[in-house]
Amino acid sequence: MALNRQWRLAARPSGLPKESDFSWHEEPVAEPGDGELLVRNLYLSLDPANRGWMTGRKTYIDPVGIGDVMFGSTIAVVESSRHQDFQPGEIVSGFLGWQDYALASPRALVKLPPELPVPLEDYFAVFGHVGMTAYFGLLDVGRPAEGETLVVSAAAGAVGSLVGQLGKLHGCRVVGIAGSDEKCSWLTAELGFDAAVNYRREPVAEALAASCPEGIDVYFDNVGGEILEAALSGINDRARIVVCGMISQYNAIEPPPGPRNLGNLLIHRARMEGFIVLDYFLRASEAIDALGAWVSEGRLRYRVHVVEGLEEAPAALNYLFDGRNEGKLVIKLAEPPA
Amino acid sequence: MALNRQWRLAARPSGLPKESDFSWHEEPVAEPGDGELLVRNLYLSLDPANRGWMTGRKTYIDPVGIGDVMFGSTIAVVESSRHQDFQPGEIVSGFLGWQDYALASPRALVKLPPELPVPLEDYFAVFGHVGMTAYFGLLDVGRPAEGETLVVSAAAGAVGSLVGQLGKLHGCRVVGIAGSDEKCSWLTAELGFDAAVNYRREPVAEALAASCPEGIDVYFDNVGGEILEAALSGINDRARIVVCGMISQYNAIEPPPGPRNLGNLLIHRARMEGFIVLDYFLRASEAIDALGAWVSEGRLRYRVHVVEGLEEAPAALNYLFDGRNEGKLVIKLAEPPA
Repeated sequence: MALNRQWRLAARPSGLPKESDFSWHEEPVAEPGDGELLVRNLYLSLDPANRGWMTGRKTYIDPVGIGDVMFGSTIAVVESSRHQDFQPGEIVSGFLGWQDYALASPRALVKLPPELPVPLEDYFAVFGHVGMTAYFGLLDVGRPAEGETLVVSAAAGAVGSLVGQLGKLHGCRVVGIAGSDEKCSWLTAELGFDAAVNYRREPVAEALAASCPEGIDVYFDNVGGEILEAALSGINDRARIVVCGMISQYNAIEPPPGPRNLGNLLIHRARMEGFIVLDYFLRASEAIDALGAWVSEGRLRYRVHVVEGLEEAPAALNYLFDGRNEGKLVIKLAEPPA
Repeated sequence: MALNRQWRLAARPSGLPKESDFSWHEEPVAEPGDGELLVRNLYLSLDPANRGWMTGRKTYIDPVGIGDVMFGSTIAVVESSRHQDFQPGEIVSGFLGWQDYALASPRALVKLPPELPVPLEDYFAVFGHVGMTAYFGLLDVGRPAEGETLVVSAAAGAVGSLVGQLGKLHGCRVVGIAGSDEKCSWLTAELGFDAAVNYRREPVAEALAASCPEGIDVYFDNVGGEILEAALSGINDRARIVVCGMISQYNAIEPPPGPRNLGNLLIHRARMEGFIVLDYFLRASEAIDALGAWVSEGRLRYRVHVVEGLEEAPAALNYLFDGRNEGKLVIKLAEPPA
């Protein structure tokens, strides 16, 4: 009988998550009830937001409970189905957790289109919550206009690299902020960013002033903290700051102070707005169609960083916080069906 | 020959402005050139924003230069006119500075309606930049809906007291934050606020949690700093934070850190937006008509704190920062014509 291997939350992390904050379980695979499905996870997406779900605090979702299977988005294959709309072998995506198998109700699943323009392994790099975050965050909240300057932080990350390319597709000057020269080169040489700032090597406010000679119209923020302060120092009138993430804060034991120059919002009549991709799921097809077309045309590039084996998930999660991942970070749990 | 008495900026203040940051000048009153007017200031408005103009930094306007007449909004009477549209004795408002007399071009002036529903002394408490700031800031940027909860800081101040009352007129639960029990009583007993928090006596976040049982939908911020952080801790999904002022920061020698909980903007998909009343001057009549009607109906109350004599302006400016003013602070320079 197959075993379901799981990572469960064992303790609330203080600072960076440690492997001991998780516990490994193996239990028999459950049988689907009436109307349910049994799915087998193939790829697990690791995202900075995962860290927020591990605190005891309700965010936009309830936190992971101690002893619960760790939350995560996955791509899965239907193993057995007791619902007429799903057949074994179909590929789905859902919020199915850090485990090999899951029982799911059909309304918690999205069927992947049978003709995906990318390999399954690449799905989370362009589509799913990552693609929708970039697409709706930039276009709906940031509202860039042609000729404007867009700055994006964590620009070599999964969301950031799409945001910058979407900015170029919409006629913006695009400047990315990333944490290594290699990442910065990738942004400018491969993705078409106009400039990139290595925040580990140069003072960000000065570097942005130099690379944004006409000021910043849209700042897509994935990091918060000092880099947010640096970007705020260079905004134009009517600038829009898209609050997508605050990765610099997620592992803070004491919440660090905010930017000292929020008064710039006032002086520049600027808008700072948060958003949660969950709110956009009813409009998913709009993003998927647009992103799919650009990928097919070769106008949207990405990198995928695949780590093999569910066992590696706790260690790999920290790649997101020390900057070791190169591209969208996914755990491969099993070989997709041919 | 009449003398024009003036306060000029002598030095950039460090911390609270001191009288020695200004210098007193007396010079002959100038003659208007062709197309110009000579006006005599009757009332000078003192506002927290004045402090920002005294720094060397461009804000939404160029700063006051060292040696220049201090900037300020006034109500004035036309003394002599070399422009056909203006006659001696007419009452105007403009950005005419801390002085008895000014030369002005017609396009820098607004004629006051001849039938004002309030005495001239009260004009800046309801109309002008104060009324427009409250009206457009709350309604255009904050967009309160009936049944929502509105919190306003510096609530006993000129703008704050109007904002709260406008919130009540739009069907909101309104909670004010002010700095004395007397001010809090005025808000609840006289202005109809549902609750008031004395930030000098109680922890603001806890007091807001108690007085906003359904959370905060709109926070109209006049102060920034710790009170902004307290308000952010209680926001609802889709909350709007109107950044109108940051009085807690204006006299800071080193900019203080911002709120530690900006991540709440993300979790709650909230919007924080600055605005500058200058941007709304083309829509002034909309605000004046609405505010005038409410004042005439007795549905909008205010207090005016009149200080006699231009000499007092530097000392009186600090009333705004130590909380000593009770209502809209104006300097009376001369008796209005009968």
